[in-house]
Amino acid sequence: MSFSQADHAFMRRALALAAQGRFTTDPNPNVGALVVKDGQVLGEGFHQQAGGPHAEVFALQQAGSAARGATCYVTLEPCAHYGRTPPCAEALVKAGVARVVIAMLDPNPLVAGKGVAILQQAGISVAHGLLTEEARALNPGFLSRMERQRPYLYLKLAASLDGRTALANGQSQWLTSDVARADVQLWRAQVSAILSTASTVLADAARLTVRQSSDAGAEPAALIRPLADGSLRQPLRVILDRQQRLTGSEPLFNEGGPVLLCFAADAAPRKLAVTKVTVEQLPLALSADGQLDLVQLLTRLAARQINSLWTEAGAILAGSLLKAGLVDELLLYQAPLLLGEQGRPLAVLGDFQQLAQTPKLAFNEVISLGPDLRLRARLSEE
Amino acid sequence: MSFSQADHAFMRRALALAAQGRFTTDPNPNVGALVVKDGQVLGEGFHQQAGGPHAEVFALQQAGSAARGATCYVTLEPCAHYGRTPPCAEALVKAGVARVVIAMLDPNPLVAGKGVAILQQAGISVAHGLLTEEARALNPGFLSRMERQRPYLYLKLAASLDGRTALANGQSQWLTSDVARADVQLWRAQVSAILSTASTVLADAARLTVRQSSDAGAEPAALIRPLADGSLRQPLRVILDRQQRLTGSEPLFNEGGPVLLCFAADAAPRKLAVTKVTVEQLPLALSADGQLDLVQLLTRLAARQINSLWTEAGAILAGSLLKAGLVDELLLYQAPLLLGEQGRPLAVLGDFQQLAQTPKLAFNEVISLGPDLRLRARLSEE
Repeated sequence: MSFSQADHAFMRRALALAAQGRFTTDPNPNVGALVVKDGQVLGEGFHQQAGGPHAEVFALQQAGSAARGATCYVTLEPCAHYGRTPPCAEALVKAGVARVVIAMLDPNPLVAGKGVAILQQAGISVAHGLLTEEARALNPGFLSRMERQRPYLYLKLAASLDGRTALANGQSQWLTSDVARADVQLWRAQVSAILSTASTVLADAARLTVRQSSDAGAEPAALIRPLADGSLRQPLRVILDRQQRLTGSEPLFNEGGPVLLCFAADAAPRKLAVTKVTVEQLPLALSADGQLDLVQLLTRLAARQINSLWTEAGAILAGSLLKAGLVDELLLYQAPLLLGEQGRPLAVLGDFQQLAQTPKLAFNEVISLGPDLRLRARLSEE
Repeated sequence: MSFSQADHAFMRRALALAAQGRFTTDPNPNVGALVVKDGQVLGEGFHQQAGGPHAEVFALQQAGSAARGATCYVTLEPCAHYGRTPPCAEALVKAGVARVVIAMLDPNPLVAGKGVAILQQAGISVAHGLLTEEARALNPGFLSRMERQRPYLYLKLAASLDGRTALANGQSQWLTSDVARADVQLWRAQVSAILSTASTVLADAARLTVRQSSDAGAEPAALIRPLADGSLRQPLRVILDRQQRLTGSEPLFNEGGPVLLCFAADAAPRKLAVTKVTVEQLPLALSADGQLDLVQLLTRLAARQINSLWTEAGAILAGSLLKAGLVDELLLYQAPLLLGEQGRPLAVLGDFQQLAQTPKLAFNEVISLGPDLRLRARLSEE
């Protein structure tokens, strides 16, 4: 399949449109669409919110009757099923477009190709595979759930240059700058759920909510797009509390998204009197090391449409996730300090006899955030 | 003083010329010069090797009699004294140049301005202060010795993302990639001396020599320019050996530059039977913590024309230098691995009660080296 330079340029625009939905579409994927005729953009749109119109619908609406004979660029295969909205493939047929260019097919193997088939049966010329990698990068979480039946897991850590998260006495506020902390808010605002532990909730009075950065220096790129009702989408908060140490009176329970409290299935759930947020208690099996079974947790989360999981916790959970090979991507905020050999470690991984046994990563991005760095690295699959 | 766009362009060229001497001029500074008339470059040169001609001499030679009435751009004030070569200021007068543009005055307060005076007395128009910061960046070591009477100290460390230099059992080969190791060679080749310890020499059989990278993928930028005789300049190797554990039979003594063995002044120097390299034994006082006095060492090194010192050692010397405030710049090679909480620490700094007590740095550069990162950070002076 060969694509013209114009095809590339229009698909890049569709990708940029798709990205505008990143704070609001969950659990749906980010999708962008463009309607183009004679080199002119007649309509554009992106999926904004689950239950609302899909990207193609916005683009077709803008184009109106001029869509007849036009080309539609869309970052994901148009849907073929009646969900909360009618199928987009049929809307494209009805609008009379002549050609549809698709970045990637639907990742759900049960659905992949069905949208294309509807279009082709109607005599529409269909091409797919343009900027597929870029389109995949829009939806790592959605793709992970569809393709692997588990969420895409981010491990967020913040440390000094010598890999310490706090002094021996626990002092760590503020290791990183407010610019770095505002960046963390942007990530929280894009994921389906945040994973943490009772220890972190208790030690840091952590709320794990999404807040618009009040940083006066915040750039427009650092603004979180709100939902249609003007509120910020609050991700699910998944808290590992094997021993049920949380009482319901912690700041976590005063505001924010729903809480999923995970406890050991061998005990009865503790009674909690929480009124301000929705709390669900999830019993989990214990793994061989006596900890809550993380694989079971991820399977359960995928089943409830959790695409992506952002982990903010301590060195023990970080180590468990890494050792279990469940981390997809590490985000390390590095502060230009040295805390020394008595500082707290980044991840508890146990003893290794050989370098070959240690978790390997590959850097995919390094940026400056004020005085700090943010390193992104993917875990290698070996 | 205002400079034209052409002045800037020609001075940038002079700076680029100066940088070509970075592997060979030690202990002299890197200097570049350009002779320009009517917008045409008539001659250019850079200082190549101590004892050899200065940059201005090369540039004037190339220009020949056409230098009369020309402008000379030079990155450092032309010298005014008879050293191993006659003063450049007089050569410029003799050549009959009309104007001299200087990036920075001589950093030696006893000499600063004397070259300018000779030029001005001969009726030459002199301007200085163009791209001064860039000119200073060419010679951090030379300037440190002239202005602070101590070498510019680089601390090189290599670690995993969690700040560990090796596994608990000591295994660390090869934490970083061959690209990163080739980069270390480039740095060794540019400094006056390498600082290490008997522990490192014994544990790693370290030679601390400059070697042309045999890496097939090495880019031209990764080639070390040899001396006039075709050999690579080998920096002095300064080894801290308080207890005189080195016998002279270690690989260190088989090749490379001279060795300066530092030992505690309260003992007699050990007899060493070394024939292949020059060895000098330097007694040093002990500081309050019973270690060799690092401040005394740096003063002694500056007195013997050591401009810059590249430290490759373990966590203890790294910590001592950091705590004493003697590190000017940290170069941290970060490998995309995690070694875990039992790995060896980056720097032994002792216990801190407050984040405010810890060494603070500021990143000045981050680059990729193959799979690794190289972070450069300057120590903040607070």
